[in-house]
Amino acid sequence: MKKELVRVKENISPYIHRTPILTSKLADEMAASRCYFKCENFQKMGAFKMRGATNAILELDSKSRNNGVVTHSSGNFAQALALAAKLLNTKATIIMPSNAPNVKIEAVKNYGANIILCEPTNEAREKTTDQFIQMNGGTFIHPSNDLNVILGNGTAAMEIFEDYSDLDFLIVPVGGGGIIAGSALAAKYFGKNCKVYGAEPKNVDDAKRSFDSGIIHKNKSLNTIADGLKTHLGDINFPIIKENVEDILLVEENEIVEAMKFLWERLKIIIEPSCAVAYAALLKNKTIFKGKKVGIILTGGNVDLTKLPF
Amino acid sequence: MKKELVRVKENISPYIHRTPILTSKLADEMAASRCYFKCENFQKMGAFKMRGATNAILELDSKSRNNGVVTHSSGNFAQALALAAKLLNTKATIIMPSNAPNVKIEAVKNYGANIILCEPTNEAREKTTDQFIQMNGGTFIHPSNDLNVILGNGTAAMEIFEDYSDLDFLIVPVGGGGIIAGSALAAKYFGKNCKVYGAEPKNVDDAKRSFDSGIIHKNKSLNTIADGLKTHLGDINFPIIKENVEDILLVEENEIVEAMKFLWERLKIIIEPSCAVAYAALLKNKTIFKGKKVGIILTGGNVDLTKLPF
Repeated sequence: MKKELVRVKENISPYIHRTPILTSKLADEMAASRCYFKCENFQKMGAFKMRGATNAILELDSKSRNNGVVTHSSGNFAQALALAAKLLNTKATIIMPSNAPNVKIEAVKNYGANIILCEPTNEAREKTTDQFIQMNGGTFIHPSNDLNVILGNGTAAMEIFEDYSDLDFLIVPVGGGGIIAGSALAAKYFGKNCKVYGAEPKNVDDAKRSFDSGIIHKNKSLNTIADGLKTHLGDINFPIIKENVEDILLVEENEIVEAMKFLWERLKIIIEPSCAVAYAALLKNKTIFKGKKVGIILTGGNVDLTKLPF
Repeated sequence: MKKELVRVKENISPYIHRTPILTSKLADEMAASRCYFKCENFQKMGAFKMRGATNAILELDSKSRNNGVVTHSSGNFAQALALAAKLLNTKATIIMPSNAPNVKIEAVKNYGANIILCEPTNEAREKTTDQFIQMNGGTFIHPSNDLNVILGNGTAAMEIFEDYSDLDFLIVPVGGGGIIAGSALAAKYFGKNCKVYGAEPKNVDDAKRSFDSGIIHKNKSLNTIADGLKTHLGDINFPIIKENVEDILLVEENEIVEAMKFLWERLKIIIEPSCAVAYAALLKNKTIFKGKKVGIILTGGNVDLTKLPF
């Protein structure tokens, strides 16, 4: 897998940004550790998902690539696959729930993708996707439970290790599991005994329950401000997470908002609530990380500025 | 002056950040030019003022430095002088208007400066400052009308020219004139025929009127969202501006808010309304800048997140 990651990183590099890693004395003081913030909010289309989407398309054979790619997403992966398809001269079709915010639908449309709206249920989403592919062909790319997506996502952490090879810890938000699985593989092959922790809102603790029980659980409620973390793990990323992640740390909603506000005010960067979950987990668990070097993946920056929680 | 700038840049470099320069394809498309955003919002204490404040203290002889520095400011220069004094082991006293936001007073206090509140008028401010210095000694440092402050501020533009020596234009917000005067000197000595434009809100067009008439004017109203640009030019920076700046471009309040929102959403960075004035001026004057390479100084990022204009 190490060679695979190196190859993937080289393949996608013409199509993505190498994002900066920010540090802040005040953030270090708050956390009683040395923090390295990997700014995937500055990635193309505003999130790490661009990495996995690009790699998934690059790994298709030329015939499949000609037939286009299909996914279902209302979030960052919709924009990522749309933009990656545009850059790689293929066509993307995105199945989106009919209640998706107009600004997200517009963003996908602006990247030149086809959009098909469906009822906002899991069943409708899958049925619409299957029907579309049966009728029109195209390769389905899952937003997080796809090995090529996972390897593409892992390149963000690889970049951290290139600059800071001696990180003690990496904290990564857990939603569908695509970025933490990729980061855990990167830490395994490119870190020096770097331990990986997941961070998840307590209100949507499916990954923590899955991790503890060994069986994939789903969420009972979706009541969190971290809207990128409502999805559940899959059969491809879960085994990687089980084997390579130390634990998954839970945080409360108010802790997410406070961490988000702190990072906005002090780092002067715009990040999604989902990223703040990782820094909130660090602040909440100082005994684990005290005095250590901690990488934190700031996963994205696509927020509605008119609906801020502070 | 060229040698002076080189020396100043070397002197202050241990105490400041070399801030990144961001680019954005979308920002380029919007402006029909190539934009280079110098991110002084990532500077220590969140604004370029740290450069000038640091240099002003470094230029004091050791006796003066022991006696401390004094300024009047309710804005970024208050924090800048407080932090620079802390880093350089001297004491700062800041005269602040009694109606200054509590968060700004707290920030200055946290950097360890003395704070003296006065009535929120120009007369009270100057009288309080004079009285304090008569009683206690200390060197007054003006936030913008001080050659050492101007030279320190100029190092931001020098860093741009180190990375992009062939910039055609530089657009800089104009408030008290300290950053545009420094930037104009940097462009003169380190640019290759790079023309400098000022950008100012139409509602506080004192600098434009001063520039056109050759006499320093003050503002009749202070009704602008760009709260860093309400001050007027001074006898030290105005001659530099007159000689080295092409023109001062005016923008409306709604254009400032739109430019600010665009930069937040697309660059994913937090900037003050005052910085957005420069990009707004670029969008409004495409005929001047079309197809050219344009440096834009994003002067600071200290905003109250609970009082956003969008």
